[in-house]
Amino acid sequence: MSEVRAKKDVAIIGAGPVGIFSVFALGMAGLATCVIEGMDKIGGQCSSLYPEKPIYDIPALPTVTGGGLIERLEEQAKPFKPEYILSRRVMSLTKNVDDDFELMLQTQEKVVARALLIAAGAGAFVPNRPPLPNIDRFEGKTVLYFIEESAQFSGKDVVIAGGGDSALDWALILKDIAKSVTLIHRRATFRAHESTQAALQEAIQNGTIVVKAPFVLHGVEGEGNELSQVIIKDFDDKQESLKADYLLPFFGIATDLGPLATWGIDLEGKRIIVNPTTMQTSLKGVYAVGDVNTYQNKRKLIAVGFSEAMYAAQDIYKYVYPDKVFRSAYSTAVGVPGVE
Amino acid sequence: MSEVRAKKDVAIIGAGPVGIFSVFALGMAGLATCVIEGMDKIGGQCSSLYPEKPIYDIPALPTVTGGGLIERLEEQAKPFKPEYILSRRVMSLTKNVDDDFELMLQTQEKVVARALLIAAGAGAFVPNRPPLPNIDRFEGKTVLYFIEESAQFSGKDVVIAGGGDSALDWALILKDIAKSVTLIHRRATFRAHESTQAALQEAIQNGTIVVKAPFVLHGVEGEGNELSQVIIKDFDDKQESLKADYLLPFFGIATDLGPLATWGIDLEGKRIIVNPTTMQTSLKGVYAVGDVNTYQNKRKLIAVGFSEAMYAAQDIYKYVYPDKVFRSAYSTAVGVPGVE
Repeated sequence: MSEVRAKKDVAIIGAGPVGIFSVFALGMAGLATCVIEGMDKIGGQCSSLYPEKPIYDIPALPTVTGGGLIERLEEQAKPFKPEYILSRRVMSLTKNVDDDFELMLQTQEKVVARALLIAAGAGAFVPNRPPLPNIDRFEGKTVLYFIEESAQFSGKDVVIAGGGDSALDWALILKDIAKSVTLIHRRATFRAHESTQAALQEAIQNGTIVVKAPFVLHGVEGEGNELSQVIIKDFDDKQESLKADYLLPFFGIATDLGPLATWGIDLEGKRIIVNPTTMQTSLKGVYAVGDVNTYQNKRKLIAVGFSEAMYAAQDIYKYVYPDKVFRSAYSTAVGVPGVE
Repeated sequence: MSEVRAKKDVAIIGAGPVGIFSVFALGMAGLATCVIEGMDKIGGQCSSLYPEKPIYDIPALPTVTGGGLIERLEEQAKPFKPEYILSRRVMSLTKNVDDDFELMLQTQEKVVARALLIAAGAGAFVPNRPPLPNIDRFEGKTVLYFIEESAQFSGKDVVIAGGGDSALDWALILKDIAKSVTLIHRRATFRAHESTQAALQEAIQNGTIVVKAPFVLHGVEGEGNELSQVIIKDFDDKQESLKADYLLPFFGIATDLGPLATWGIDLEGKRIIVNPTTMQTSLKGVYAVGDVNTYQNKRKLIAVGFSEAMYAAQDIYKYVYPDKVFRSAYSTAVGVPGVE
């Protein structure tokens, strides 16, 4: 039996700016929510890709950083006691006998909700994986795409693949921690900041980083999920075998709608088709707002997603309470719970 | 010949929050605007009705006053050098030989624009006028609904009509300035704050305010636009004549779409029907955003109006530049003119 992690009126998928504002929009309509987010923090791209970058087109915020925007939205949602379920991906969707949605998370936890609001933006951020046989056996254990802490590499042989800032930054950090650091790149030149490249050259001179370039990954070998060898080859197909406890491929991040794409919701490309004034998808009870949805003339702007959340709230209310009349409460008249 | 006051890509009618944000939304699309506003300041209801009242449902602004919201929007629009044409009402709309719109203002100034964006909210605020013969002869001169400064009443006989806060407040202010103040009300009781009513009772005792109640206005007399007599009657039709230099009726404020209602734009009640993802009205080149428009499921929220402005900008661009491709510029990528 899987544990029920949350049971709410509405499960929101994605804690980007529009997902967070949806907590407020649904809350104002009297609907309780939880937010399921694949990353370990809320904010989506605003937090992960441009926390310091100024945004100018949020109405009535002449300048705000991505991080500042998320802080403000979090504060605004707070009166509705949002439950953020972080570091979780939705693996499957079913309906139970009560006509509620049941979302199975990859942790085997279950979220039960009357309606579903997808605010997944461009989809989850997923690393580009090298297409090596058996690599999945090692992934998450000795082949890592995201690094939480560097201490695990102490005294280990580490192979890093890639030619951008992430690959070089981690090579430079780990050279002082790991037993050995080998950097594999398919070209002889790198695409990193100049100062990073200068530091790399110095490390090569000192012998603290070994560079194999141009080389590409060819295979991974080991016992169970413990890696022992990384096989590389050059463009003449000459192979070399490198002793390795860890392989860290940094080939960039792609976006992925994940299992959403398999639920039978009508899509246009990778985006979910909705009615532009209800945000209802082709699946009854399932709604989509923000960059993940599409309709005629759709503009992918955060300000548009905020308005869409207001429309979704109205229609979800009617879906959850088919016998009640939706009353648009004005915040100036009714206030907000817990706010004077 | 009437003077051309402004010639722009787009004339925006109404300088409420959505009208001001439209300057920004159109500006980001490369379109130059002017904003025509009936009041003598920008901000619409936010400035005139609730400048101090907190609003909680503007996305990413957990709390903001009506006045604070307008200040922020004004700052955001500033890089696009908006031209606010205040204290002007649009009297008529025509098209010239170049297929441009020509708006005639009540000042006989003309505004020429390629497209029109109506952001008139609930319409202009207009005072409820007492239905007296010839009253229009005195209006704006000796019969006043809005008072700009009280010094003009020095040494004058003033008749004030109404039973609410505006009537009582002005009676109490003018009793120390005018030669005489007479307050007319159709009921014996008033609808003002208790402290105001107490102050009125004191003024009546002192003889500084004379109250005639229950009485109603029956006529106005004078030479040209100079008032001399206000005729009142009680409910037995007994008339009295009051010597008066000024009549100040305070019968509340109504909203009025004004001449917009006669332009042949399809309406539903007093609201303009638009396409929900273009904001186009039934008249080509005329758009409407914010509370003045309607479509299926429409929610009258400022956050919705902001998003509508973004959609209007996209479609107006296509209307103004039919041969060009609209590119949604992201503020994070391109910045905003004059902003680092």
